[in-house]
Amino acid sequence: MALLDQDRLFPVEDKPRQIARALYETVADLPIISPHGHCDPQWFAENERFPNPSELFVTPDHYVFRMLVSQGVSMDDLGVPRADGSVGEADPRKIWRIFAEHFHLFRGTPSSLWLNHSFEHVFGLDIPFNTDTADAYYDHIEAKLAEDAFRPRALFESFGIECLATTEGALDDLKWHAQIRDSDWNGRVITTYRPDAVVDPEFEGFAENVEKFGALTGEDTATWSGYLNAHRLRRAFFKEHGATASDHGHATARTEALSRQDAEALFQKAIAGKCSKEEADAFRGQMLTEMARMSLDDGLTLQIHAGSVRNHSSKVLASHGRDKGFDIPSRTDYVHALRPLLSEVGMERDLNIILFTLDETVYGRELAPLAGAYPALRLGPPWWFFDSYEGIMRFREQTTETAGFYNTAGFNDDTRAFCSIPARHDVSRRSDCAYLATLVATGRLGESDAFEVAHDLTYRLAKEAYRL
Amino acid sequence: MALLDQDRLFPVEDKPRQIARALYETVADLPIISPHGHCDPQWFAENERFPNPSELFVTPDHYVFRMLVSQGVSMDDLGVPRADGSVGEADPRKIWRIFAEHFHLFRGTPSSLWLNHSFEHVFGLDIPFNTDTADAYYDHIEAKLAEDAFRPRALFESFGIECLATTEGALDDLKWHAQIRDSDWNGRVITTYRPDAVVDPEFEGFAENVEKFGALTGEDTATWSGYLNAHRLRRAFFKEHGATASDHGHATARTEALSRQDAEALFQKAIAGKCSKEEADAFRGQMLTEMARMSLDDGLTLQIHAGSVRNHSSKVLASHGRDKGFDIPSRTDYVHALRPLLSEVGMERDLNIILFTLDETVYGRELAPLAGAYPALRLGPPWWFFDSYEGIMRFREQTTETAGFYNTAGFNDDTRAFCSIPARHDVSRRSDCAYLATLVATGRLGESDAFEVAHDLTYRLAKEAYRL
Amino acid sequence: MALLDQDRLFPVEDKPRQIARALYETVADLPIISPHGHCDPQWFAENERFPNPSELFVTPDHYVFRMLVSQGVSMDDLGVPRADGSVGEADPRKIWRIFAEHFHLFRGTPSSLWLNHSFEHVFGLDIPFNTDTADAYYDHIEAKLAEDAFRPRALFESFGIECLATTEGALDDLKWHAQIRDSDWNGRVITTYRPDAVVDPEFEGFAENVEKFGALTGEDTATWSGYLNAHRLRRAFFKEHGATASDHGHATARTEALSRQDAEALFQKAIAGKCSKEEADAFRGQMLTEMARMSLDDGLTLQIHAGSVRNHSSKVLASHGRDKGFDIPSRTDYVHALRPLLSEVGMERDLNIILFTLDETVYGRELAPLAGAYPALRLGPPWWFFDSYEGIMRFREQTTETAGFYNTAGFNDDTRAFCSIPARHDVSRRSDCAYLATLVATGRLGESDAFEVAHDLTYRLAKEAYRL
Repeated sequence: MALLDQDRLFPVEDKPRQIARALYETVADLPIISPHGHCDPQWFAENERFPNPSELFVTPDHYVFRMLVSQGVSMDDLGVPRADGSVGEADPRKIWRIFAEHFHLFRGTPSSLWLNHSFEHVFGLDIPFNTDTADAYYDHIEAKLAEDAFRPRALFESFGIECLATTEGALDDLKWHAQIRDSDWNGRVITTYRPDAVVDPEFEGFAENVEKFGALTGEDTATWSGYLNAHRLRRAFFKEHGATASDHGHATARTEALSRQDAEALFQKAIAGKCSKEEADAFRGQMLTEMARMSLDDGLTLQIHAGSVRNHSSKVLASHGRDKGFDIPSRTDYVHALRPLLSEVGMERDLNIILFTLDETVYGRELAPLAGAYPALRLGPPWWFFDSYEGIMRFREQTTETAGFYNTAGFNDDTRAFCSIPARHDVSRRSDCAYLATLVATGRLGESDAFEVAHDLTYRLAKEAYRL
Repeated sequence: MALLDQDRLFPVEDKPRQIARALYETVADLPIISPHGHCDPQWFAENERFPNPSELFVTPDHYVFRMLVSQGVSMDDLGVPRADGSVGEADPRKIWRIFAEHFHLFRGTPSSLWLNHSFEHVFGLDIPFNTDTADAYYDHIEAKLAEDAFRPRALFESFGIECLATTEGALDDLKWHAQIRDSDWNGRVITTYRPDAVVDPEFEGFAENVEKFGALTGEDTATWSGYLNAHRLRRAFFKEHGATASDHGHATARTEALSRQDAEALFQKAIAGKCSKEEADAFRGQMLTEMARMSLDDGLTLQIHAGSVRNHSSKVLASHGRDKGFDIPSRTDYVHALRPLLSEVGMERDLNIILFTLDETVYGRELAPLAGAYPALRLGPPWWFFDSYEGIMRFREQTTETAGFYNTAGFNDDTRAFCSIPARHDVSRRSDCAYLATLVATGRLGESDAFEVAHDLTYRLAKEAYRL
Repeated sequence: MALLDQDRLFPVEDKPRQIARALYETVADLPIISPHGHCDPQWFAENERFPNPSELFVTPDHYVFRMLVSQGVSMDDLGVPRADGSVGEADPRKIWRIFAEHFHLFRGTPSSLWLNHSFEHVFGLDIPFNTDTADAYYDHIEAKLAEDAFRPRALFESFGIECLATTEGALDDLKWHAQIRDSDWNGRVITTYRPDAVVDPEFEGFAENVEKFGALTGEDTATWSGYLNAHRLRRAFFKEHGATASDHGHATARTEALSRQDAEALFQKAIAGKCSKEEADAFRGQMLTEMARMSLDDGLTLQIHAGSVRNHSSKVLASHGRDKGFDIPSRTDYVHALRPLLSEVGMERDLNIILFTLDETVYGRELAPLAGAYPALRLGPPWWFFDSYEGIMRFREQTTETAGFYNTAGFNDDTRAFCSIPARHDVSRRSDCAYLATLVATGRLGESDAFEVAHDLTYRLAKEAYRL
């Protein structure tokens, strides 16, 4: 018995299904390159066991708990920590039972595939998860978690991860990364430079953050040049801890290419807390261009994750804080927004800028034409809500004809749900193989070419795009 | 011989086709729940025969006549009533022949499926409709319409309708509903509260409507509190005539959560006819929030139908009036527009708000993420232009992975073309079964789960969402 | 051996594949109607041989060279002429080798299908193109180009072209068209009226262009009425050289219906060089309406190609000029933008306006509802980035259900790559047949109807829409 169909996500027709299967067999066991995500480096530094099934699968994963919330379950009953740090329900078994009771809500969703994949492939379970089996599941997973083979480092290895990037703020001391580096463990866990707190004038405590930024780097961050220098030094520090990329999660993809004088004046306004909403947006835009310029020097890949309206519900933000499933995409322009940046550095061959979107309408209209022209651009994989079979198909169908495969950047799992990493990469590999098989079966791609492309999409393009 | 393929809309491949067929067999004959539409309650109150084939199929159905108009047929030649009440062509047989002559225009459209379904299943016709058969069709249908079995109530029953909601304005006296209720007929025909005339400051005669609203309810609708009370009373009156929902068809999805004082001031401007375009929009937005608050008390489901640019052609509006096929969708934002309303009541578990859109780009980007988070939200089925096989597929493919099935609200036929009701529900059932079968065949859904979901999509979810 | 799969682009499943093949067989050899494109009329006037393989396939085709540029190849190394007229690499064989080296970039793109189609069907090549075969390819094609059978007129005939429209500016003397007309060759090569230089106040040298326009026509183009008369006369001159259409490539689809007085005032501002950006846009919009009014008199079909942000990279514009693959689509509204024009002339049955878009989101939301209502409107085929299998499928799937087939205008190849013309029409024919076959196999279209529709989409609708 099995929870998962062995041929899942492959085309239904016999011929392309066979091609997809053949392609998949050549990539299924390739090492996992995870160049962008939100795992906690402390896991691998300390290598403590995961506390219990609910804290592994439910509480930290907003993909999972928001679905239950959408059907009337309260975050408190799921033990999701409140903004003040307190917790409603503390009994993990009770939480687990609520999860089981609502598992049907995930029918047809990627979460269902990911969870069943983890249950089956990580924990060896093969009976369906539901209210009848909830306790047996809980006991089984709990017992496994107590084994050494289920500690973070051991799972990292059994998942076949070649490289895993986490994401840290510019002010982070990277001590967990240092501890990993200095340990006798050889797993490659690297950091990523995420400077929101010091590039976004609307970020809580921005001015103090910039001061602290100066203290950390020994630069006078009350001046524009000192501030930029502080970024340079901090990027170098992140590089020492493995970073090959920076990451920028703005509400829009706006960029600016201001004169030095204008940028400086804007910066002074920003640290004085005097930016209007519009000026704050302009400053963030200018900083994308500054980051790209620094990338020309230090070689970090620049990731732009644009278009999320964060904390849509003020009530949820007040009660339970950020990252609780209430970040909603909105319409996002790239073609005008990126023009200042691209006019500056878009034709640079030695620069890698990876674009992500939550607005699928831009795939064919904006992103593929841009990436199919500018040498500096690569398209990141389908992000967040769109990291799914249908999302991947739409991405390929809407970008390949204009930008081809070689202007894309492989797969990201982008997750904080550690056990879902192999599942997510598996969905990506299968979906890409399904797409390629369809191209072959309809005479749009040679079969031998398809094998090469499958390998590239799974492994080579991610390594190249992120210089791993 | 048959007009329709028995396996229409099912996947082509053998395996999923068999699954789709098996799923469909379990839902094909379930009762029809029609919780939103535009049938005329007078039909069921008086139970008079339908006048003739053209007035049944052509003249009242803008889906049908606008297609002929788009190819140069004049509305007058089709007997579409003019704005002044006069009629061009009055001979129904002549109209019918023009219809037949242009029937090829419907190739590949849902209208073609709906019409052929009605011809075959309601009237027992099995030869193709075209200029050669036009007269035979006319005579056959005309003869049937004279039979008692083809009167409205008899058709209602033979269609297997369990519940049919019509839509009436807030000032309507609901006399036809009263007559149905007081008759010896047991068909469940209910009303829906549609208050456009008294919530939209740009509606013709708004101020007088609000006055009449006061007279009807005994409230002083010159005051904000009296006006709100009038709504409460009117909603109660509609509930007495079966209503379980209100319906709001604004050009945008804008909502507001103004202070009482600001709302009151805006209302005074509105009844004084002094609202700017922007203020009128804000007032409509505020009223959506007020309606949601009232729903918390009286339990009516709130439907938001946003995004139609009504009466695009001023010439057609002048010559033939409203609802003549010249309402065109436009880009519509939900994520910012709904924020004020959702911040107020979005987390309420006992509130049902059903969102409809004519902008398919919001399915995956805005609606599914919102409905997959806020407990108060449900997604309405594909609406109007998108109530079709491809439209349903896009809806499912773009919403299921984020919002699942259980944040959707079943099917609406939304029609004033009575005979198309069984046809439309059949297309919906077949399309959903096709989608589910594809999920099963690609390992994304368990087969036994699929049977449960098929039943839910056809029957249970509509009853729940509308509290029927 | 063959480069192309004989059943390419047909559905994979046996039944619809057979239907698609049967449909395709009836349209594969129909004459090519090419009512919109950018071939150079000089080719057919002078009938000189094409210079070499690189100048046939690489240098002039921005679909091809931009893909190499996007991966870091420089335009100079590809011999793309610079803005100042100079050329970097001049050795066509070297360019050809770079092309071969990067041919894998086209995997999965329509360019790959088009190029392989040309290689196989025009030049009789059947080994894969790559670095190993690059020189053999070059020598083979070069030898063929020296043959009379490969001169422009001979290829025109062997391609089965019944009519080919080129596009010329309003100030063009049309001497090549006159030379073709006056030659003993009977190929139908016609012009199209493209007045950008004299209707766009932001066009380089607008004021002087309008003066020259006056000189050419003997009208006083310093007055609004003289200027309009000049258009009338010029349109008549273009008609004498075969034109059946005008073409308008604005950044937006904005139209205006200004009073005569306001239009006149705006025109005076425009020729005085005093238009703001907004006024320039309004003037272009007014001119669309003026062109439509003239079409009512002279019968020219009006084409609107809206939504391209031209010359996105200022660097590339400076170094290599226009049309270098850096024109990027952006979000484009039609529903509000076209309202003034449509209120004036949308209900005219004798007017043909063909709408094109680079924003696929408008297919279902705006264009199909508009074309499914207004008699004057037809939908042009998928344009530019979307002239591909997936692009065609999305177009049909998103427009057919609302607008049917008969509000569409057949296929355009829109190309300056002469050898790709048969390839592009072949892709269009196959894709349409695939779509129709899917409709038949899923019971949405009768099989005999499908044969009629296939013929209409391939041949009749283009002739009708362009009055050829």
